Amino acid sequence: MTVQRILIVSGTHGNEINPIWAVKQFNREANTLNYGIEYEYIIGNPVAYEKGCRYIDDDLNRSFKEIKSHNQQKNSVYEINRANFLVNQFGINGSNPCQIAIDLHTTTANMGTSIVIYGRRFKDFCLAALLQNKFGLPIYLHEKDKAQTGFLVEAWPCGLVIEIGAVAQNFYDPKIIDRFLIIISSLREEIDKLKNNLIELPKELVVHVHQGSIDYPRDEKGDIDGLIHPERMNQDWKIIKKGDPLFFDSQGIIHRYDRDQLIWPVFIGEVAYKEKKIAMSYTKKEVICSEKQWVQEFESL
Amino acid sequence: MTVQRILIVSGTHGNEINPIWAVKQFNREANTLNYGIEYEYIIGNPVAYEKGCRYIDDDLNRSFKEIKSHNQQKNSVYEINRANFLVNQFGINGSNPCQIAIDLHTTTANMGTSIVIYGRRFKDFCLAALLQNKFGLPIYLHEKDKAQTGFLVEAWPCGLVIEIGAVAQNFYDPKIIDRFLIIISSLREEIDKLKNNLIELPKELVVHVHQGSIDYPRDEKGDIDGLIHPERMNQDWKIIKKGDPLFFDSQGIIHRYDRDQLIWPVFIGEVAYKEKKIAMSYTKKEVICSEKQWVQEFESL
Repeated sequence: MTVQRILIVSGTHGNEINPIWAVKQFNREANTLNYGIEYEYIIGNPVAYEKGCRYIDDDLNRSFKEIKSHNQQKNSVYEINRANFLVNQFGINGSNPCQIAIDLHTTTANMGTSIVIYGRRFKDFCLAALLQNKFGLPIYLHEKDKAQTGFLVEAWPCGLVIEIGAVAQNFYDPKIIDRFLIIISSLREEIDKLKNNLIELPKELVVHVHQGSIDYPRDEKGDIDGLIHPERMNQDWKIIKKGDPLFFDSQGIIHRYDRDQLIWPVFIGEVAYKEKKIAMSYTKKEVICSEKQWVQEFESL
Repeated sequence: MTVQRILIVSGTHGNEINPIWAVKQFNREANTLNYGIEYEYIIGNPVAYEKGCRYIDDDLNRSFKEIKSHNQQKNSVYEINRANFLVNQFGINGSNPCQIAIDLHTTTANMGTSIVIYGRRFKDFCLAALLQNKFGLPIYLHEKDKAQTGFLVEAWPCGLVIEIGAVAQNFYDPKIIDRFLIIISSLREEIDKLKNNLIELPKELVVHVHQGSIDYPRDEKGDIDGLIHPERMNQDWKIIKKGDPLFFDSQGIIHRYDRDQLIWPVFIGEVAYKEKKIAMSYTKKEVICSEKQWVQEFESL
């Protein structure tokens, strides 16, 4: 395995502050593991972090679309420049190249500790399977959504998002920080084992595959006119079947799920997604049998 | 009693959205009480609400300091103009005068359902005592803090804040909404009873009197360098004694409460107060014997 450097990003969204503190704490605590892999810890969006907001001009975690080299003209959108900077600096062809990117996020939804991967890259499967095997974490496989592209980790050959909630924006929560500390340590352990060929992949990977998102009920002016139904609140990853309540609107009318397909919802009521017109996303469960090729591809990184 | 009109304000902070929905729902539901009192429901800061932020230029709930008449020049701060508008419109000498103002807020701190009053106005005591008697709610009496002035309800002859948490900014929570609905109904019931001389005050009022606020540990650059200690998280209203942990900083050092006076903390870790350099506020408990004069003053409104 040729992995030399791994990028750990916190604060890609400036108001998700617990990962930033977790990284600070992690760096302070004794760290005995060292198999020749260097870790680069960076705050994704330091300006937004300073201001306590998600982003300045645009969502950084949707800004990794067309990366340009340093020499090209500055964009008027701060996050486009920041995405360019991060890739030019830490991307696989950057000045301090990292082979893997781990992006640490929090959500206001009750997702617990979960993993998000983008598309079906074997290298990501490998890392995700190891973490799932260790902790039983749910994995959200995001794919085929034209409205949602340009995620940070997609700009690296291997990478995943650690998504932990529920926690409010800008709110420090020691329990959430502890969960990040456990994940960061474990990730480093697993990668060290991989580096030393000490790893055995679990037989399968269970993923929740993105099927699309739904919006809140809205009034004629386009304003949100419905709440997540109490039966749905905090029920991320819990199956929904036809007839189950989704929202109730300002007229007291209950809006129900009306399709036959069973679905598992995620990011229920995520505050930051209101502007994206997402009240929750739908997923379906899929079991993927693991393949030796996953480790081989990972080793070729 | 001469109370004719009561102002119910939600969304004084634009990202505290549950009260806005509660009022919407309250207006929709059947409402049989009507003893000749009119209720005026208004969104305090509609522009901030639309943008999903606490305020545009400055905290509206600190902007009721020097109210000017309509004819005077516009201020460059949106919230100053808005405060002027609200008082000119709904103040005791306004065009649609209201004698009482009830201001509905949420907090990210684990305060439960609580009441905030400003100073020791007997009319407020009267209303607060009735609510406390009904629900056992804790009351935060805010006074003598030069750094915190210009609260909305202070611009009315009688008024109080209903403060409910913990709930994240911009996050709809049906449980929080239900709590507001209960309080709004009860307030209306109690005021109707007062209007019909059906009220008997409880013997005493228990208040938590503001003693000051403390900031987070900060580093040499002035950045926050410590978290609320896990033993303190969500422990609003719970007594602190000398030696109890308050924070732990990035060096892992625990900062402890070092005074002899017993204190009861409130607004622990409130997200919106970071910019005010408040990690929590200290209160002391005080029991005030109720007096007939409270009702008399209320009746003279």
